[in-house]
Amino acid sequence: MQSVAAALRAVLGHVPVLAAERVAIARAAGRVLATDAIAGRPLPGFDNSAMDGYAVRASELPGTFPIASTVAAGDPGTTPVPPGTCARILTGAPLPPGVDTVVMQENATRDGDRIALPQKGRGDNVRLAGEDMAVGAVAVRAGTRLTGWHLGALAALGFAEVPVHRAPRVAILGTGDELVDVTTTPGPGQLVDSSAYALAALVEEAGGIPVRLGVARDDLSSLRPLLAQALEHDVVITTGGVSVGDRDHVHAAFADAGIELALYKVAMKPGKPFSFAMRGATPVFGLPGNPVSTVVAYELFLRPALLAMQGATHVERSRAHVTLVGGYEKQAGRAHYLRATVTRDGDRLRATPHPKQGSAMLSSLIGTNALVELAAELTTVSAADTVPALLLEAV
Amino acid sequence: MQSVAAALRAVLGHVPVLAAERVAIARAAGRVLATDAIAGRPLPGFDNSAMDGYAVRASELPGTFPIASTVAAGDPGTTPVPPGTCARILTGAPLPPGVDTVVMQENATRDGDRIALPQKGRGDNVRLAGEDMAVGAVAVRAGTRLTGWHLGALAALGFAEVPVHRAPRVAILGTGDELVDVTTTPGPGQLVDSSAYALAALVEEAGGIPVRLGVARDDLSSLRPLLAQALEHDVVITTGGVSVGDRDHVHAAFADAGIELALYKVAMKPGKPFSFAMRGATPVFGLPGNPVSTVVAYELFLRPALLAMQGATHVERSRAHVTLVGGYEKQAGRAHYLRATVTRDGDRLRATPHPKQGSAMLSSLIGTNALVELAAELTTVSAADTVPALLLEAV
Repeated sequence: MQSVAAALRAVLGHVPVLAAERVAIARAAGRVLATDAIAGRPLPGFDNSAMDGYAVRASELPGTFPIASTVAAGDPGTTPVPPGTCARILTGAPLPPGVDTVVMQENATRDGDRIALPQKGRGDNVRLAGEDMAVGAVAVRAGTRLTGWHLGALAALGFAEVPVHRAPRVAILGTGDELVDVTTTPGPGQLVDSSAYALAALVEEAGGIPVRLGVARDDLSSLRPLLAQALEHDVVITTGGVSVGDRDHVHAAFADAGIELALYKVAMKPGKPFSFAMRGATPVFGLPGNPVSTVVAYELFLRPALLAMQGATHVERSRAHVTLVGGYEKQAGRAHYLRATVTRDGDRLRATPHPKQGSAMLSSLIGTNALVELAAELTTVSAADTVPALLLEAV
Repeated sequence: MQSVAAALRAVLGHVPVLAAERVAIARAAGRVLATDAIAGRPLPGFDNSAMDGYAVRASELPGTFPIASTVAAGDPGTTPVPPGTCARILTGAPLPPGVDTVVMQENATRDGDRIALPQKGRGDNVRLAGEDMAVGAVAVRAGTRLTGWHLGALAALGFAEVPVHRAPRVAILGTGDELVDVTTTPGPGQLVDSSAYALAALVEEAGGIPVRLGVARDDLSSLRPLLAQALEHDVVITTGGVSVGDRDHVHAAFADAGIELALYKVAMKPGKPFSFAMRGATPVFGLPGNPVSTVVAYELFLRPALLAMQGATHVERSRAHVTLVGGYEKQAGRAHYLRATVTRDGDRLRATPHPKQGSAMLSSLIGTNALVELAAELTTVSAADTVPALLLEAV
């Protein structure tokens, strides 16, 4: 049985990076930049005024000047300002030829039809072309997952399209005779395939395109065609059927479809019966059937894999140090991932584990914003100890 | 000039909560639950086995038993197990009538066609109906922004649809003679309306539906029709034209359209010329024109407003305590929001401010994962001081 770290290394060592494509900047949020975005024009594009005021030659200050012209944002600003005069200038307007300095209007005094301006340093209140970004500068590094903040800078540089890695199309396939879709009322012994909906939303959050294929029965004749359909996608996720039960046919179906098992079972709780396999360049993830095991295994292995396939530099959740309210006792051997609510207490983060930690306890999916990671060898954690937690949101 | 806190209170005091609607669970990620989701069925739905093993009466243990039947996940499990016998049972299978306990198969010994089972406590390895969630329990509270984790629990409870608040349709309108779209190469004195793309992505992240209306020229005849079109949405955002320059027509256009200014100018840097107004029930946000001011004002006022309009309980970014690398000097009077990269250093968070803090410096949009908040009255922050920072992502 491998450790979580070794299993993650194995997964990340196998998954391919998807090809790049160009997408319009309006569709690029959440995508991962495929090549460094290099500034092809300077920012700002031209010397301009940071203030509303008067553009003059610093060498002529202090002094009283006639207003030769007015230049506003959007004007070309190509008319020179003669020596001994100034230009009325508005914020963002280009600095006209001849002048080098802007005096804020709050520092100017009107004197008839002339303007008295005090001493100022050369270049005051002028934003120079390229002082924000010079041509050739790396604006955004390849591997960055783009947010609105990045897109603002990229738009300013004229990137109408950006090169990003393709979003992985992720087939989600439930297995189990007991599973019904959410639109069906479960009969005796049946339950809803809830993981399909959980995983679809999580895949979307990670930049993937989820495709729910429904539920395969626990026999090869049902699994085989759905697995073949799943293998037409970039990634396959199955849930259930990877334990040791008599009716667990998923690994048999994997072998039948030419899917090669790369790892099976990880020293973690919940999520031990996790398996990872490849069919050619297509990663196949066999997630456990218990809904909590499913999402925990998703967080630890699948989310990093999906981000890695998109070429992201950072693929793992941030780990913060937390104290664990009430402490915890466990057996050595497997790492435990406690569903917990982390809150901030001054400088410290405090994790309150959900009272129901069973892998079938869906109530622990609610209110969880972190997974507290108790290392395999740990047995006793006191309330004073600090342990790592994977943060699922900013806290 | 109002404080940031007072301005946010004013904004949140004005914005309406949008009506609820029902959406399919597959479309509900990122939406805000409109009413408490109450469990209408127990979870699990029936007593079932947590293990692969043998279902027996605890009162008959230890003993050797013939196998009366086999029950797997998905079987109805309605055939009683006669006294003196056991049932082979698989994980997730319903506990048949008559038996009350499951012995793990690892603890069982085959003895011819009988199974020898050791002593066990009554109810061992049995998940009882309703022990995860009882009928009538609040599964997810109104005001929760739904993630895949919540959707898993809701699907398990049979919520094929969930009631969520309507996603605000947000009109984004740039103003300024200098602005061109990203698809146009800027001429002399022109620049790209980058904020439209930044804001659209940020609005989407906050659960809104952005509608980019393009750029209005700096005159009433251009602004009036676009503003009228913008007012057909749930929220209006304008950028630019709210400063004191000679060509700032946005507030005149607001008055012309019956938009009532609720606040103008906030004691912050960047972002001072922020304005907030209402036209009937429609909030109108006048964001400053400098791209960095725009996104900072968005983060402080618009994102909370959009979440509040969706009925979210938590609308503000988490504030963490950070130390500020290099310290900082500022004038008293306005709160400063430094764009910074926060990294974890053991238990502490350390913020490195971007070297270019000017409000026109788009390069500071890159690498920023937090806004360090320096209170209005502060003048000197040493590198040893702890100051709050709004976290834009988990760190």
